[in-house]
Amino acid sequence: MVENDTNAENCKLTLIIDAAQKRFAYYGLSKTTMTEIASDIGLSKASLYYYFADKDTLFRAVVKREQDFFLNEMRQLIQEEKTAEDKFFNYTKHRHTYLRKVFVNLTQLKMTMDHVKPLLGNLMEVFMKAETELIESIFQEGIKKKEFNNMNTKTMADAYISSAQGLRTLTIKNRNSYVLEKSDFEEIETRINIIAEIFIKAIKKNKDESIA
Amino acid sequence: MVENDTNAENCKLTLIIDAAQKRFAYYGLSKTTMTEIASDIGLSKASLYYYFADKDTLFRAVVKREQDFFLNEMRQLIQEEKTAEDKFFNYTKHRHTYLRKVFVNLTQLKMTMDHVKPLLGNLMEVFMKAETELIESIFQEGIKKKEFNNMNTKTMADAYISSAQGLRTLTIKNRNSYVLEKSDFEEIETRINIIAEIFIKAIKKNKDESIA
Repeated sequence: MVENDTNAENCKLTLIIDAAQKRFAYYGLSKTTMTEIASDIGLSKASLYYYFADKDTLFRAVVKREQDFFLNEMRQLIQEEKTAEDKFFNYTKHRHTYLRKVFVNLTQLKMTMDHVKPLLGNLMEVFMKAETELIESIFQEGIKKKEFNNMNTKTMADAYISSAQGLRTLTIKNRNSYVLEKSDFEEIETRINIIAEIFIKAIKKNKDESIA
Repeated sequence: MVENDTNAENCKLTLIIDAAQKRFAYYGLSKTTMTEIASDIGLSKASLYYYFADKDTLFRAVVKREQDFFLNEMRQLIQEEKTAEDKFFNYTKHRHTYLRKVFVNLTQLKMTMDHVKPLLGNLMEVFMKAETELIESIFQEGIKKKEFNNMNTKTMADAYISSAQGLRTLTIKNRNSYVLEKSDFEEIETRINIIAEIFIKAIKKNKDESIA
């Protein structure tokens, strides 16, 4: 990449990723060609290959941008003037909405996470690690503000993100179809909300006596 | 099946399932034949087919017996003179040991849950339902004994079993190999223990102030 014109370069990358995202969303990954993407934005095929070595790399860039967009939104959420508890519940809510959208997108592409996973490399692991760090910082803030009891924030954040992700994985796995029904999303949401409530109940100072 | 000699019939079923279990464990499902199982216990092939229509049905009977054995052990555990909290933690510990054993058995057969699942029919769903009912009865006992706060025991038991199962599914899914390492089992165990502690922390009356 040319070093002396970063903005123009970034702009070009944005155009390419936008075009790829649209093509993938409408026609699916397998039915989209690099030539079509290049032609959509008036770029030569050679130029496109200069930026992305192949279609899989470009697909990863699309997924990575969506993940970064969600993570940045969540980083802003953490800056808001709210209690750590509110931030935690907001995170849970936004996470569900985001992952539901990802799932619906995959369904439109007639792809499942099992198809997509080999293409993604370590993107999912990196994403879950970033999520765990965000949750950890909410827990740390809660301790600092005396909202939450002392705890091992790292271990607790890992347990939260992996159980939320696990509940999702379990429902998807129990479905033999790649299409999740509205009721499946509701089941996932109900279970994750209960886990979120239980975490807050367990870590919050001066708890109420009733739950669920 | 002959009605007037139930004990002898049960005995025969036990012998068949024992023989099948041994063969499956040593040689795997695909390399075991119905003829071999029949011959191991001096039964004619026709007699064997009288009891089990095919090898998959026999495999399900083996799995079902193991599940029932575990569930019966857990039903006994619930009868013990202990606090509901102790029963809950004991359940968690035994569940982990049992499912680790199941997993190791599958690994020896060079099979994954993905291979086995289509053979199992609804056995896993029925098993998880039975587990959820057992956990629910521990929660109910805890409320009755004033150990636990009031809660929707059904929803909470479902959330617990599905998150414990989800944590397990997530780790297995993140492995591309069907062989889980010792460290994977430790990771699953650590996370599940934290979730169990968090549940107890959230539902228990007069809680301590520190966790994890």
